[in-house]
Amino acid sequence: MNTLPPEPDPAPPTPPTASQRVIAAFERVSEVDRPELWTTLRAIEDVLVDAKAVDERVKAGEVLPLAGTVIAVKDVIDVAGQPTTAGCPSFGRVPETSATVVARLTSAGAVVLGKTNLDQFGYGLTGTRSPYGAVSAAWDRTKVAGGSSCGSAVAVALGIVDLALGTDTAGSGRIPAALNAVVGLKPTLGLLPMTGVLPTSRSYDAVSVFATGLAAGRRALALMTGPDGVDPGTRPWPADVRLGAGDHPRIAIPDKAGLAPLSAAARLAFQDTVTRLVASGAVVEPIAFDAFREAGELVYTGSLDAESYAVIGEFLGKDPADADPTVAALVHGAGGHTAHAFAADKHRLAELKVRAAQALDGFDALLVPTVPDHPELAEALADPIGVSHRMATYSSFVNVLDLAAVTVPVLPGDRRPFGVTFVTRAFEDQIALDLATVCTDEPMTHYPEPGEDLVVFGAHLRGQPLNGRLTELGARFTGPVRTAERYRMVLLATEPPQPGVLEDADGSGLDGERWRLSPAALGRFAATLPEPFVLARVELEDGSRVLAVRCEKDAAATAPGLERYESWRGYVRFTSTAGLRAPG
Amino acid sequence: MNTLPPEPDPAPPTPPTASQRVIAAFERVSEVDRPELWTTLRAIEDVLVDAKAVDERVKAGEVLPLAGTVIAVKDVIDVAGQPTTAGCPSFGRVPETSATVVARLTSAGAVVLGKTNLDQFGYGLTGTRSPYGAVSAAWDRTKVAGGSSCGSAVAVALGIVDLALGTDTAGSGRIPAALNAVVGLKPTLGLLPMTGVLPTSRSYDAVSVFATGLAAGRRALALMTGPDGVDPGTRPWPADVRLGAGDHPRIAIPDKAGLAPLSAAARLAFQDTVTRLVASGAVVEPIAFDAFREAGELVYTGSLDAESYAVIGEFLGKDPADADPTVAALVHGAGGHTAHAFAADKHRLAELKVRAAQALDGFDALLVPTVPDHPELAEALADPIGVSHRMATYSSFVNVLDLAAVTVPVLPGDRRPFGVTFVTRAFEDQIALDLATVCTDEPMTHYPEPGEDLVVFGAHLRGQPLNGRLTELGARFTGPVRTAERYRMVLLATEPPQPGVLEDADGSGLDGERWRLSPAALGRFAATLPEPFVLARVELEDGSRVLAVRCEKDAAATAPGLERYESWRGYVRFTSTAGLRAPG
Repeated sequence: MNTLPPEPDPAPPTPPTASQRVIAAFERVSEVDRPELWTTLRAIEDVLVDAKAVDERVKAGEVLPLAGTVIAVKDVIDVAGQPTTAGCPSFGRVPETSATVVARLTSAGAVVLGKTNLDQFGYGLTGTRSPYGAVSAAWDRTKVAGGSSCGSAVAVALGIVDLALGTDTAGSGRIPAALNAVVGLKPTLGLLPMTGVLPTSRSYDAVSVFATGLAAGRRALALMTGPDGVDPGTRPWPADVRLGAGDHPRIAIPDKAGLAPLSAAARLAFQDTVTRLVASGAVVEPIAFDAFREAGELVYTGSLDAESYAVIGEFLGKDPADADPTVAALVHGAGGHTAHAFAADKHRLAELKVRAAQALDGFDALLVPTVPDHPELAEALADPIGVSHRMATYSSFVNVLDLAAVTVPVLPGDRRPFGVTFVTRAFEDQIALDLATVCTDEPMTHYPEPGEDLVVFGAHLRGQPLNGRLTELGARFTGPVRTAERYRMVLLATEPPQPGVLEDADGSGLDGERWRLSPAALGRFAATLPEPFVLARVELEDGSRVLAVRCEKDAAATAPGLERYESWRGYVRFTSTAGLRAPG
Repeated sequence: MNTLPPEPDPAPPTPPTASQRVIAAFERVSEVDRPELWTTLRAIEDVLVDAKAVDERVKAGEVLPLAGTVIAVKDVIDVAGQPTTAGCPSFGRVPETSATVVARLTSAGAVVLGKTNLDQFGYGLTGTRSPYGAVSAAWDRTKVAGGSSCGSAVAVALGIVDLALGTDTAGSGRIPAALNAVVGLKPTLGLLPMTGVLPTSRSYDAVSVFATGLAAGRRALALMTGPDGVDPGTRPWPADVRLGAGDHPRIAIPDKAGLAPLSAAARLAFQDTVTRLVASGAVVEPIAFDAFREAGELVYTGSLDAESYAVIGEFLGKDPADADPTVAALVHGAGGHTAHAFAADKHRLAELKVRAAQALDGFDALLVPTVPDHPELAEALADPIGVSHRMATYSSFVNVLDLAAVTVPVLPGDRRPFGVTFVTRAFEDQIALDLATVCTDEPMTHYPEPGEDLVVFGAHLRGQPLNGRLTELGARFTGPVRTAERYRMVLLATEPPQPGVLEDADGSGLDGERWRLSPAALGRFAATLPEPFVLARVELEDGSRVLAVRCEKDAAATAPGLERYESWRGYVRFTSTAGLRAPG
């Protein structure tokens, strides 16, 4: 949970029923009196019908991970029976089925409170371009909420809903998170199906999640991840996806020129995050920001917005009265690009993607401020294009370069809400989530990527000489384990010294670590595991059997036993203390 | 080697030196008298300088896999010091450096004879659109050679060069192969760097290889594969790439409607290939061809050619006198597409890609005729657009759907040259190569994809009950092996029965099989290998040590020994013969 005031009430001893939660949500709606957050706020009776159905399912014994969770949905994402207006009432139509992402959340027990306001058609980063009203920040009505997913972010920030869905093409899922001090998760393109989501850009749209904490956001993402057989843009996990960054992650930050646009407050908050990262063991290094900046600029100055025209150009061409004039003018302009200019822009992006990858080579993530400053509402209304463009400085490069991002609030001292964003390579969402916990101190569990478990006992342990072999493969530490009793260690004459783990009725059990590896990482680990080690199963004290690094029985026959030690670390401590030869 | 007349001379006892080979090539150039094959045929003195340098390197002890190989290069691919005209002399310029693919071949010992004629700018599939002259087929001067890589294919077919490079966007690397009875390899997009290659379509161009046999083509591909750090379009191998299709590959063919465009001769030849495949153990099944056809049509009727305009539109806009009128008209038209139409076509392609993937689900490859018929040269000259479009029927869908293809000649009886194409999913080039050997009876070795070796001894052997576990993972059988003497088998009480392999001084060695698995396949194999099996190394009789499926020593302690058998198959044969319990 983030530490933003007002502090959430201490969790009740039992979680509220869905119905109780819905009633509380509507109380909060009245309290905050922000009608502009919604394009459609459902009637409480209707929402309670859904909530009661959830409560019935729970009573009947169903395990619903989101029972008691109230959500809001950005109004470009279909919710069955509710109009999808995209912030333009005359565009509205009532879909019969929910978007895949919504259906996955509601079937897990979530209840939809309503559809949220946005920069019309998702076109803007300030949250001010909407006939439903400009949305101001949760904690300062004189400032912008950020857009385009303004209503969703503020509904979470004000404690009305537990989670909200946004979409993110150029920063719409991150900027409003940063300006309202909630978490914003912008997953890798193609992980969440876009079926039932009105596109802004078919190539670069992602559904995003707003939540008060990383763990809750991660759970929602996990429930929505995976192909639905309809969206042609979904992508499978690569079989060699990196799942972890080890104990000393390497984090790139923009160099001095790259951070020049920051306001003084933003600069201090960013620096605080860097300090916190370094204190946690990370290595932080500045890199040139040019390729990222150019890619982000291309979103604003190039022809990529032709993808918007392909979807809404014809509609806006009829000059509907409720079209936002800024949006209408921009989309109209997007209709004038030639196909060859578009192809050339795509090619330039491909080149910039290579340069960005080179800049990030050897780093686990790029940390950026989410926005350079927090604009006044009045400024954004007076200069809607200029302010939106400025807000994009640290966000619009992410999707066009095929990166993943996690925005997390930073609230040092009494400063205004300000977020930072951890950007990782595509599919390395887990790493961004793990790194972002440095700002929230949350425990973090698995994102649902493919992976295999492996238990290690010796020099592969955290902090031991061969641990790099696991972290280089992108393995993720998932916790300590203890074996059943019938295992013991011997001391092998390897370099560095390593224990050989054997099954032996005389054993008394061993401490080890469980790591999660991508399938390819496990294959590469197996293919390069030196003799006399083997991959074989061990039984843990809970009776489960997992793959582990063990030892050829023959090779261990003449090795000295380490029966006195229940863990390799215990032995290493002993040798250090006793002044004996310490491993590497 | 293919069996096309004239039969190549029997291989000399020692390979020719590069210089000898160059002299022979120029003799053949005179013999065939086909000046229209070349845009630039280098002077013999110059080529001999290169050849002598190769001979020197060989003499000095360098191992050059292509020493003594003469190649031709399609004239959209840069060769240092030779003009790149793209078939339009006024477009020509002399590059200082060779394309990456050319540099890789020449540094492996290949010598470039010249640059070959093509449909201007790679724009056409008949080989007739060039001011250097229309190119007729190698074996019938009244018929087209096919394009756009006409000169390259015919130079190989006529035995002038050993290998030739083409490019392939809509079939240019396959159609001329089929019509001149040589092998044409169209690798997965992004495997070969395009640096130094004039694009027709940056999204869908591949460098292709023409050769007289699959093995020679594979070797050239292997030498050219891999990123060069410059081309932003190169892609790494997926870590779970399938490397093999097992002993009973499943091959899809177009259904009756899909084969309707075939001429009678083409139909017979295609059917012959199917018969040959079935005889070799493959399962062949018709599938609907609609999605493939629509994708292929989009190349001709949509806005994708805007990518050509982006490269050559400006040049052709100046109406150069040596522009081919058909090409100039088509490219001019390509300048008129809007960016939003282009975006919509790309989206439609994404949808078709999903449908094509669904159609190919469960199949290892799609076999198609390469062309529906072999057009007369006169017809192509009279109707250059119509004939090119017809030639595309079975080829233009491949690159836009991100597939790989291998074209191989079929020459049953006295029919005209006719090729078939094995189409596989992206990166499964190895599978297409392996399958195509059914037409050439060549042994086939590895394409240089990532992979790890694993030795198996029991139920995972070919034809044994658990072999499917390997083939489902896309593992590729690479040959039999024999262990060092100190291994023996015991009979485990598993279901199906399996041998446990143990290291034991009393052993006398075992027969096994070596399989190659992608890193992810090995990881998945390891993660699901049931007890009492372990992954550990064995020593082979040649002293090498490889990962193998072995057995927990403790589990084998009470199992009956199979010391009398040197292989599991031997034991299985014995139990069958003796009427004992035979495994699954």
